[in-house]
Amino acid sequence: MSHNTFGHLFRMTTFGESHGSTIGCVVDGCPPRIPLTEADVQVWMDKRRPGQSRFTTQRKEPDTVRIVSGVVVDEATRVKVTTGAPIALLVDNVDVRSKDYGEIENQYRPGHADFTYDAKYGVRDHRGGGRSSARETAMRVAAGAIARKIVGDVRIRGALVQLGPHRIDRSRWDDAQIDENAFFCPDPGIVPAWEAYLDGVRKAGSSCGAVIEVWADGVPPGWGSPVYGKLDAELASALMGINAVKAVEIGDGMAVAAMSGEDNADEMRHGENGAPTFLSNHAGGILGGISTGQRVVARFAVKPTSSILTPRRSVDRFGAEVDVRTKGRHDPCVGIRAVPVGEAMMAIVLADAFLRHRAQVGTGAPWPFPAREPARG
Amino acid sequence: MSHNTFGHLFRMTTFGESHGSTIGCVVDGCPPRIPLTEADVQVWMDKRRPGQSRFTTQRKEPDTVRIVSGVVVDEATRVKVTTGAPIALLVDNVDVRSKDYGEIENQYRPGHADFTYDAKYGVRDHRGGGRSSARETAMRVAAGAIARKIVGDVRIRGALVQLGPHRIDRSRWDDAQIDENAFFCPDPGIVPAWEAYLDGVRKAGSSCGAVIEVWADGVPPGWGSPVYGKLDAELASALMGINAVKAVEIGDGMAVAAMSGEDNADEMRHGENGAPTFLSNHAGGILGGISTGQRVVARFAVKPTSSILTPRRSVDRFGAEVDVRTKGRHDPCVGIRAVPVGEAMMAIVLADAFLRHRAQVGTGAPWPFPAREPARG
Amino acid sequence: MSHNTFGHLFRMTTFGESHGSTIGCVVDGCPPRIPLTEADVQVWMDKRRPGQSRFTTQRKEPDTVRIVSGVVVDEATRVKVTTGAPIALLVDNVDVRSKDYGEIENQYRPGHADFTYDAKYGVRDHRGGGRSSARETAMRVAAGAIARKIVGDVRIRGALVQLGPHRIDRSRWDDAQIDENAFFCPDPGIVPAWEAYLDGVRKAGSSCGAVIEVWADGVPPGWGSPVYGKLDAELASALMGINAVKAVEIGDGMAVAAMSGEDNADEMRHGENGAPTFLSNHAGGILGGISTGQRVVARFAVKPTSSILTPRRSVDRFGAEVDVRTKGRHDPCVGIRAVPVGEAMMAIVLADAFLRHRAQVGTGAPWPFPAREPARG
Amino acid sequence: MSHNTFGHLFRMTTFGESHGSTIGCVVDGCPPRIPLTEADVQVWMDKRRPGQSRFTTQRKEPDTVRIVSGVVVDEATRVKVTTGAPIALLVDNVDVRSKDYGEIENQYRPGHADFTYDAKYGVRDHRGGGRSSARETAMRVAAGAIARKIVGDVRIRGALVQLGPHRIDRSRWDDAQIDENAFFCPDPGIVPAWEAYLDGVRKAGSSCGAVIEVWADGVPPGWGSPVYGKLDAELASALMGINAVKAVEIGDGMAVAAMSGEDNADEMRHGENGAPTFLSNHAGGILGGISTGQRVVARFAVKPTSSILTPRRSVDRFGAEVDVRTKGRHDPCVGIRAVPVGEAMMAIVLADAFLRHRAQVGTGAPWPFPAREPARG
Repeated sequence: MSHNTFGHLFRMTTFGESHGSTIGCVVDGCPPRIPLTEADVQVWMDKRRPGQSRFTTQRKEPDTVRIVSGVVVDEATRVKVTTGAPIALLVDNVDVRSKDYGEIENQYRPGHADFTYDAKYGVRDHRGGGRSSARETAMRVAAGAIARKIVGDVRIRGALVQLGPHRIDRSRWDDAQIDENAFFCPDPGIVPAWEAYLDGVRKAGSSCGAVIEVWADGVPPGWGSPVYGKLDAELASALMGINAVKAVEIGDGMAVAAMSGEDNADEMRHGENGAPTFLSNHAGGILGGISTGQRVVARFAVKPTSSILTPRRSVDRFGAEVDVRTKGRHDPCVGIRAVPVGEAMMAIVLADAFLRHRAQVGTGAPWPFPAREPARG
Repeated sequence: MSHNTFGHLFRMTTFGESHGSTIGCVVDGCPPRIPLTEADVQVWMDKRRPGQSRFTTQRKEPDTVRIVSGVVVDEATRVKVTTGAPIALLVDNVDVRSKDYGEIENQYRPGHADFTYDAKYGVRDHRGGGRSSARETAMRVAAGAIARKIVGDVRIRGALVQLGPHRIDRSRWDDAQIDENAFFCPDPGIVPAWEAYLDGVRKAGSSCGAVIEVWADGVPPGWGSPVYGKLDAELASALMGINAVKAVEIGDGMAVAAMSGEDNADEMRHGENGAPTFLSNHAGGILGGISTGQRVVARFAVKPTSSILTPRRSVDRFGAEVDVRTKGRHDPCVGIRAVPVGEAMMAIVLADAFLRHRAQVGTGAPWPFPAREPARG
Repeated sequence: MSHNTFGHLFRMTTFGESHGSTIGCVVDGCPPRIPLTEADVQVWMDKRRPGQSRFTTQRKEPDTVRIVSGVVVDEATRVKVTTGAPIALLVDNVDVRSKDYGEIENQYRPGHADFTYDAKYGVRDHRGGGRSSARETAMRVAAGAIARKIVGDVRIRGALVQLGPHRIDRSRWDDAQIDENAFFCPDPGIVPAWEAYLDGVRKAGSSCGAVIEVWADGVPPGWGSPVYGKLDAELASALMGINAVKAVEIGDGMAVAAMSGEDNADEMRHGENGAPTFLSNHAGGILGGISTGQRVVARFAVKPTSSILTPRRSVDRFGAEVDVRTKGRHDPCVGIRAVPVGEAMMAIVLADAFLRHRAQVGTGAPWPFPAREPARG
Repeated sequence: MSHNTFGHLFRMTTFGESHGSTIGCVVDGCPPRIPLTEADVQVWMDKRRPGQSRFTTQRKEPDTVRIVSGVVVDEATRVKVTTGAPIALLVDNVDVRSKDYGEIENQYRPGHADFTYDAKYGVRDHRGGGRSSARETAMRVAAGAIARKIVGDVRIRGALVQLGPHRIDRSRWDDAQIDENAFFCPDPGIVPAWEAYLDGVRKAGSSCGAVIEVWADGVPPGWGSPVYGKLDAELASALMGINAVKAVEIGDGMAVAAMSGEDNADEMRHGENGAPTFLSNHAGGILGGISTGQRVVARFAVKPTSSILTPRRSVDRFGAEVDVRTKGRHDPCVGIRAVPVGEAMMAIVLADAFLRHRAQVGTGAPWPFPAREPARG
């Protein structure tokens, strides 16, 4: 069961509401003796932190993370390491203005989860969106920071590849540019256009959607568990579960429908070390739900922020028809800050896949296959 | 853990290989006293069964399902009903030609899971694709037939909306046409063109991809469990986990990225029974991971069948470079038979969501909200 | 997976070490609209709280619980209620004297988990026992307080029925006495003898074991899930998982081995309301893993506290042989404070069983059986 | 969720009723490349098979097991090995006499699960006990046979240590005798007395209980997952979940309550290889929920068979009061055949614990502890 827990062997359980005193998560299943300090987590929290440019919400949250369990100073090395016990991480909410939400206490904001939470539970914490707020994703980033340490040789990154209707020019892709602008954009040529576009959206009190690409290099072949723990199915669940996401693609994604079998086949040849290598990567690094050893690639589409100033028709919880304008403080494009969240979810999925693989297969299969003699356990 | 089990409260565990003696599944968690006969399951198996037109594999499998546990004739009504115990369903493989696969015993077919299974396990059952074959999906359809009975008032359907590069004209959509052609196509106007196109693909020994849409009517508001058991995240996992699927969309899917907040908002007004109703459904019937009461809509893209006659470059398990041509018997477009599989996965996700909802919330929240007095349990 | 999570639908995840800053738990799956305040939890925490008599540890922990998520003031009733979101509860550790443990930082205390934690993880938080300390059980009591609210009509109690070698006289059992002495003892006649015995144990720096009985009245017939979610198996797991427990009995427990089939059979006759009633309860209220409607009865044996002043032979983590005397502050009989912990675990198991039952069977089966017409869902 | 599934990483899902056509199980999570044939499983099935002496039921079931998935002949070695895919095992029921049960179709046999199944589900498969029959345990033995292969260096055995009120003399314990009598009794001196006693019980149409001890040698230190996946808690769940079990003990079990801390402490000294060794084993090989490296020891009490010829008072499902005599064919002491079942459950728990340990900790912690440098993953 996974109401508020994600993952199987590497598991995070999150809690907390947007305007409560504290949000937090418990990371269970982490291997022991991994060096871990709060600074290791904070660096990733800071990438997602609000208020860092005019293109994100002006809510000022330092998002300072505290680790309250599961680590100890190792006597031998004087380094703080994980103990194998659950790691609880807490972040206090400090810039809460619940009164901004007074008007909508009883109104259902279109595109938000207000109505559905009431329909399910008959009660909701409306302040700032309560549990349905994207504030919860801060804890995903925290857990993702620990996940990265578990899959230490795997490098996970993300970038914005489409803002509203404007896609990047992939021929100009430059990894080094991703952290050099307010959009996590790998195409420096499009940044000025995006700035102008989003300024317009923001000033109009409107919002726009986005597409994020996340990828992982260094994933060895063999991770993922057919047929209901497939690596791509787990990624789909992880990314679709991020607030406002409406689509997930692996590799060539929707475009595969229009391809021929010849074009879609990722052919193989000898690689440098004698192991097979692929000549293309339409599959996004996953075949049969198992990693191929190539780059693992996923994309997801984020809908435009539902909180807009333009009045929209709705009803309230007493049945009256109302027009809703959402003031508060919001990101004009939640897709931007979804980049570090998408990275975190990929890290969590990969850490879990690694542990699951190690459980069932141990140190992995030898190359060349097959094993020359039956192995045990 | 979900290697070969899908679902939480309504759970199916599948087993069996493409060329083994038997494939099967165990459905656990089914409510008791639901009328269930083999005929109730067979009707759905027959929709997916191979060899029904020249556009699917010519392997002749009757796919006759046997229920070997979990049902009993109710003494009071003389009707065969579920008992609440696990329901095991078995299907024998009868048309197995493993020798067709002799050549590729040691070769890695591009686009297939041959290499990744070896990389993970160091051994594989290569005959007909073994466990990675789409034959496994027969058992999903069987389990889906039971799931449909649990959510009896919910109607679940699917259709092919794109074959290769050719999309349907949605203005001609006619539900009644879906079962009247070999493609599960709701647009009768495009069927001749699809026939000609797929004949060409088939005769060339090539293959093509497809897009399937599945939807459910009658889902009440409130199903789905935030934040890691979201209905859309579960659907994404369910559909991405089908063989050859590379993308999943909910509602407007990838298109939301290019929309404005104004356009994307599904506005609300009074409905006929006094409960809220939505004026559009960009969200695909899910907000905040919880059903809205509208039609639940998902789409998924299936890549072209990887088994093609055109030689593709590859390696074998001993490291030699080879050219692979896949003979055997295959669907030129696996997307067609993915329609009933997609329907089944949606049924399974909804049955699970219903049981989870009933567990936590019981008979559900009253309307209008909120409850006027605190409730218990 | 359940490293630090217990339960399926009603789930608690605990975290924190004996001498860390904070211990806590996250309760997930709680139904919405249940009135819940911190005072509702505190009353049970206070039963387990240390330092309340000379027979428990002198560590002074107020165990003040804070609820930081998952509750909101219901607008309609002005009562604080659960929202269906995860409920996080935090307790600060205030009376920590880690220096008491300096000597044993590298020593393995016999009977403790020191050696096994090192053997598993290669590192451990030795301060006060770290994660293996019974301090963790405070959070079980907190979660149990919420569980009690879910199964509101079920009354759960516990009592000490054996202290060291001294058993109570069951003919003198008086429920009203349980809270009137320092032992949760239902037999007032034995209390003076127990006081004298335990004073002797305590002054000698020794320790003793105990047997606790926990029971639940008002459990309806039908809870529990055969065959691997049996109510008795879940209770066995729950109670055996409490620190220092070495045996669990249901109903007549070990004694059934020596009984005849005739004596063991709990015969049935008509009850007052026309439903069946049992004439005895050797089964402890559970048959086939499902509750019978009678009192559910379990007992568990707690070993003597491993922390004693008498030196015991051991080794340290560097391989040297040492003699260990455990100073610190300890309960001479941890079994006493295990009473509220055992009650809490039973409450948690029952809440989970109730939700699981409601998921699969809904409002339950009618009496008389069978249903006269097939039911759906 | 675990209605009919046991284990986390090594998982078995069982299905089938006593008088259905087939019973079976699916074993998921098994490591690949483990040699496995049907004969490897059959040898253990034969230990549990009914009708092997006059002291067990005369139902003649060959219990011939078929493996229908998850194994393949390894090309390199020509040995049949596991593939990592789910292993389905089927056993046909061949000696079914449902008419023996005609009378009790609507009656609730005291001590049986008849009433509780009806109370839960409103319907039941009464033939031979349906799903609640001990016939289900055949599949536990099958899964246990696979589990043994995973923990190949661990030796798991079981024995009957008490029959009715008659306990063995442990000073005469001889492992070699266990398979030399009809009782799995390690004390040859008591066998004649047990034979006479059980003949009397059998001829009187009565029944008796028993105590079984199971143990495992060769378990390395470190298996088991605190705090809710403790090895002892998992064993307690596994053994209490066997039909008719009412108590589970680890190590000294209930007797610890009467011991002093001094007596209960398992002291430690240097062992032969420089690693710590224990001077006693009151703990039954488990401290803090983690294996110590000593013998893991558990005992469980089985109640007398509920099916007896002496009439017992009861009611039927229509509310009428009846007297029930159970004819059919039954074991006078189900505890005898519970010995191989108990062994199987211990094997399954240990295989699962091994895989979980390998997932989190990999190749395990070095000795002497601590690791001299921080490790990763």
